[in-house]
Amino acid sequence: MPIPAPNLYPEFNIVRLSHVELVVTDLAKSRAFYVDTLGLQVTDEDSESIYLRAMEERGHHCLVLRQGSEPCARELGFKLFDEESIEKAEHFFKAKGLPVEWVDRPYQSRTFRTRDPHGIPLEFYVKMDRLPPIHQQYALYKGVKPLRIDHFNVFSPNVDESVAFYNQLGFRVTEYTEDEASGRLWAAWTHRKGGVHDIAFTNGAGPRLHHTAFWVPTPLNIIDLLDLMSTTGWVSNIERGPGRHGISNAFFLYIRDPDGHRIEIYCSDYQTVDPDLEPIKWDLKDPQRQTLWGAPAPRSWFEEGSLFEGQKPVKAQLDAQPIIAP
Amino acid sequence: MPIPAPNLYPEFNIVRLSHVELVVTDLAKSRAFYVDTLGLQVTDEDSESIYLRAMEERGHHCLVLRQGSEPCARELGFKLFDEESIEKAEHFFKAKGLPVEWVDRPYQSRTFRTRDPHGIPLEFYVKMDRLPPIHQQYALYKGVKPLRIDHFNVFSPNVDESVAFYNQLGFRVTEYTEDEASGRLWAAWTHRKGGVHDIAFTNGAGPRLHHTAFWVPTPLNIIDLLDLMSTTGWVSNIERGPGRHGISNAFFLYIRDPDGHRIEIYCSDYQTVDPDLEPIKWDLKDPQRQTLWGAPAPRSWFEEGSLFEGQKPVKAQLDAQPIIAP
Amino acid sequence: MPIPAPNLYPEFNIVRLSHVELVVTDLAKSRAFYVDTLGLQVTDEDSESIYLRAMEERGHHCLVLRQGSEPCARELGFKLFDEESIEKAEHFFKAKGLPVEWVDRPYQSRTFRTRDPHGIPLEFYVKMDRLPPIHQQYALYKGVKPLRIDHFNVFSPNVDESVAFYNQLGFRVTEYTEDEASGRLWAAWTHRKGGVHDIAFTNGAGPRLHHTAFWVPTPLNIIDLLDLMSTTGWVSNIERGPGRHGISNAFFLYIRDPDGHRIEIYCSDYQTVDPDLEPIKWDLKDPQRQTLWGAPAPRSWFEEGSLFEGQKPVKAQLDAQPIIAP
Amino acid sequence: MPIPAPNLYPEFNIVRLSHVELVVTDLAKSRAFYVDTLGLQVTDEDSESIYLRAMEERGHHCLVLRQGSEPCARELGFKLFDEESIEKAEHFFKAKGLPVEWVDRPYQSRTFRTRDPHGIPLEFYVKMDRLPPIHQQYALYKGVKPLRIDHFNVFSPNVDESVAFYNQLGFRVTEYTEDEASGRLWAAWTHRKGGVHDIAFTNGAGPRLHHTAFWVPTPLNIIDLLDLMSTTGWVSNIERGPGRHGISNAFFLYIRDPDGHRIEIYCSDYQTVDPDLEPIKWDLKDPQRQTLWGAPAPRSWFEEGSLFEGQKPVKAQLDAQPIIAP
Ligand SMILES: [Ca+2]
Ligand SMILES: [Fe+2]
Ligand SMILES: [Fe+2]
Ligand SMILES: [Fe+2]
Ligand SMILES: [Fe+2]
Repeated sequence: MPIPAPNLYPEFNIVRLSHVELVVTDLAKSRAFYVDTLGLQVTDEDSESIYLRAMEERGHHCLVLRQGSEPCARELGFKLFDEESIEKAEHFFKAKGLPVEWVDRPYQSRTFRTRDPHGIPLEFYVKMDRLPPIHQQYALYKGVKPLRIDHFNVFSPNVDESVAFYNQLGFRVTEYTEDEASGRLWAAWTHRKGGVHDIAFTNGAGPRLHHTAFWVPTPLNIIDLLDLMSTTGWVSNIERGPGRHGISNAFFLYIRDPDGHRIEIYCSDYQTVDPDLEPIKWDLKDPQRQTLWGAPAPRSWFEEGSLFEGQKPVKAQLDAQPIIAP
Repeated sequence: MPIPAPNLYPEFNIVRLSHVELVVTDLAKSRAFYVDTLGLQVTDEDSESIYLRAMEERGHHCLVLRQGSEPCARELGFKLFDEESIEKAEHFFKAKGLPVEWVDRPYQSRTFRTRDPHGIPLEFYVKMDRLPPIHQQYALYKGVKPLRIDHFNVFSPNVDESVAFYNQLGFRVTEYTEDEASGRLWAAWTHRKGGVHDIAFTNGAGPRLHHTAFWVPTPLNIIDLLDLMSTTGWVSNIERGPGRHGISNAFFLYIRDPDGHRIEIYCSDYQTVDPDLEPIKWDLKDPQRQTLWGAPAPRSWFEEGSLFEGQKPVKAQLDAQPIIAP
Repeated sequence: MPIPAPNLYPEFNIVRLSHVELVVTDLAKSRAFYVDTLGLQVTDEDSESIYLRAMEERGHHCLVLRQGSEPCARELGFKLFDEESIEKAEHFFKAKGLPVEWVDRPYQSRTFRTRDPHGIPLEFYVKMDRLPPIHQQYALYKGVKPLRIDHFNVFSPNVDESVAFYNQLGFRVTEYTEDEASGRLWAAWTHRKGGVHDIAFTNGAGPRLHHTAFWVPTPLNIIDLLDLMSTTGWVSNIERGPGRHGISNAFFLYIRDPDGHRIEIYCSDYQTVDPDLEPIKWDLKDPQRQTLWGAPAPRSWFEEGSLFEGQKPVKAQLDAQPIIAP
Repeated sequence: MPIPAPNLYPEFNIVRLSHVELVVTDLAKSRAFYVDTLGLQVTDEDSESIYLRAMEERGHHCLVLRQGSEPCARELGFKLFDEESIEKAEHFFKAKGLPVEWVDRPYQSRTFRTRDPHGIPLEFYVKMDRLPPIHQQYALYKGVKPLRIDHFNVFSPNVDESVAFYNQLGFRVTEYTEDEASGRLWAAWTHRKGGVHDIAFTNGAGPRLHHTAFWVPTPLNIIDLLDLMSTTGWVSNIERGPGRHGISNAFFLYIRDPDGHRIEIYCSDYQTVDPDLEPIKWDLKDPQRQTLWGAPAPRSWFEEGSLFEGQKPVKAQLDAQPIIAP
């Protein structure tokens, strides 16, 4: 088995993924996508940026859109359990020789930025401004009725290395794909918060952000979004799905924002809080791995992703190929 | 506009499509598909045949499976309003020089068989044995929870001719696809019972049966069927979907039975009882015609169909091409 | 069996129920209910009236709200098949000694008003202005996503008489409730368009309009409406449900508009086009008659209804009692 | 605010609620209820007991049915994080003067039983036999498609005391109901695993088990269960719902097993992993507290519950009354 034993006693306590900032080239158009179409709620905005939260979130933002000239992804944000955790996290990254930079982030308590060994920008904080609950203000629900940010998925040039590193941070593997030939990891899903993943790694030129996923109530909300997008000018932004994942067993849809940033709409995976949960292994050549119903993903899905700011991707070290739609 | 004015006063009154008989090469395997997987109810069976009904039907059968050495489709069955209708129907077909053969059909009152001008075998009757309602015996529901037969779809070598003929029978066009270049019909949906169609015609080598469709409660039942098929050995029998049709606005899935007979699972089209309902026109090159969400159908969907017994198909006269998945 | 044989050859052809006009005392508040909350589409409005259609309807209106000082219901509107039908209908009502008054109704071809023998105001026409389809403009869907008007339900002081009269008009009984003791009808559901009913009759002081029903896609839309109403100030307008009807097998919710007019949200009954469909009999004392799941309706549901303009109700002749919630 | 600050550093780590054993008087009838109707999976059974798991669970059992002469509830089972936790837990309960008894429990690693200060029997263990995943064996899904045990709800004679005690165990309050008059807690929802609750406390003669809840995919599965129960002889076992809770925002149904043990079917509450999640306060007199849609619960729901074996309940110290259905 190519995955490490779960690290049940990490040096510091990451609660969950929290937020990401995306640089977009036309803020108004991105607003039409994320707010008018997906239904995320604006919690702050000006001419340069829009802060968004999903319906059941009380933290100030799960997505920040920032106007820029080149689309890219900035730090992947994670919430820490307490002040002790942020001290220990700082120490952890410094001890690895990774950069640690304390930054002022609006609506967040003290925050530091760092990079993982492949160069993915990360951001850690303990507290974010809390907003009043809106999950029972049903008049505000629209679009796909997004409830909360669910996970990140990143292209990694070496998934074995990624899993080993995030294992030190306490991310536990729930499912993984092995390349039978080399015995190496081709993809892995790892969690902190008790779902199938907070962050997943997919083999490919990286690091790049493959997608950010939002949780919705039921598959019917995904069908509603498809009907809406396809009759309001967004039909070509539908990339893959709807379908049931083999891995995670979740119902999914992949769409692309106006700059090509990929968003997954996701629901109904399973609870993973047991420390002795056995990871589920899939073979890269199993056609039901991607989609339980057998449909392969299109080439774009395997090849395209968002660059991280200031980080040039490198070629994947493993060149095993999944099944790709013709 | 290439479609005829609706014929509101046909010579006889066809109530609705009723049933079809399919010749299958392995009755047990077909039973596993239609009964154990789709959830149709057996109303009679022996070593040669199985009679099936859907959950809200009180007529004895909507589908008859018949063991044979070569798979094919037999008569498309239609229910007539009354005895006067069957007399007038007989007269109508005879007057057209089409064959009329009175046959003994189990569970049906007197029935005649005939052919449409392209050779599609048709069967007309007034009464079928009625069975007690089971639509509130929820313990019997399984699979996709099929409620009733909804429509037939046939390949026609000349859709203009098909529509002209069925117009005489009182079938009214609800939606149609025109080939812009030739101004000819590429496909048409025609109804008697007040839904989008009882029978539709698609341009192609014909006559052949493209598919038989069953109505189900909601899109979630279609998702349930996909999950079931993909984990019980039927994953390769999933051909296309799920999706929303542009034409009909229905939610759909296409699957293939063990002999390749195509079945559509279908729900949520609209009511069409108004005699002044305006047909909706679609352009053959409109990618949202097939699937509102933009996904093209695979080549098999455009090319494969069931032969009608004793009827050799001829090449389509119109060779306009729709968009086909790569 | 207390119900008459179906009249398959009525003197004229009623296609379906079409529309109703309700007098409301605060047009703005009614707009907030029907448009902002239920999601009906405004097709015309001024300071005195609002015309509404549901999402799949192409006729100009299914509901007209008229400002007035006293809430009441006006004519129940029905669409006829053709000009011949309207001539024969006029003759039919005149021959019964019932009033026939030709009226100018905006957006409708020539229309006459009459009354049934108990005094229910009725209105018949052949053509209504047709509007472009909006059923695939998914950005317009909101509230409960109402697709079409489905049926009327009226209190009748003598359901046997009502059924006998509407039977002459070609309405066929699909289900009915018998009072075991007297052998008389307590309620009946009768249809023209191929669903469980266009109009139903319930024993009670009448004539009064019990409710008008709208068809929606799935039970989840009803849950969405409940969530919306209960968090936007309409919680006390929820009267009964959600639930599954024993009779009709439909999923339902009853709500009250600002003037107390009762609206049913309804989906998933069954197809009834067969002329030999056997009516289903229910016993008045069967607790699953009202709600398959056993919950009785509240007293208000049995006792309250909208007066028809200019028609004083009389006491029901049958005083058998259903089960009422404590 | 009557609730204590969350205890983020409890002496030992409880992962989640795990299982409960119910004594039933007719094992075959209970099997018909839990297995044939709800759809729980049998993992072991003999003439005295049945072990059950839900579809996504890999632990051996979440519910044990035990044949007995008097129905009652036995230990509420909780899973601990590691061996260190079980040592510390033993120490914790002993230090409180509470009984600690090490027991042999089939399929569980070493397990001790204890009682909370009101006498609720509790059981703690670290590891349970793990079974192969079945969550993608869709042919096994039936009934309400139960995915996992979600929470316990117990009557407490003093909710303030219960919350104070379970707070020491690290259970964090997510929502609570205050009696305005006395300023005391009337009910509280507390969690370990990241949902709205693992265990909730309701004011009433106690300790008694109010209900055990199972998580299902969507509200439509609850509708399916209602249809099934009401047509297979279980209609009188439906107690309350379906509806949307004000508290937890979950969609719910309450049913009673053949011995009166109450089961809740539950879905779509929200994620609560943030350590700084603010508890939501409700007023006991708010009618939307129980059901967002306004319907009050029946008297039985407030008064009836399962006795814990060997524990006589005492009267509640607070006699504030909620709104009860007439
Ligand atoms: Ca079609
Ligand atoms: Fe994902
Ligand atoms: Fe079709
Ligand atoms: Fe109704
Ligand atoms: Fe509960």
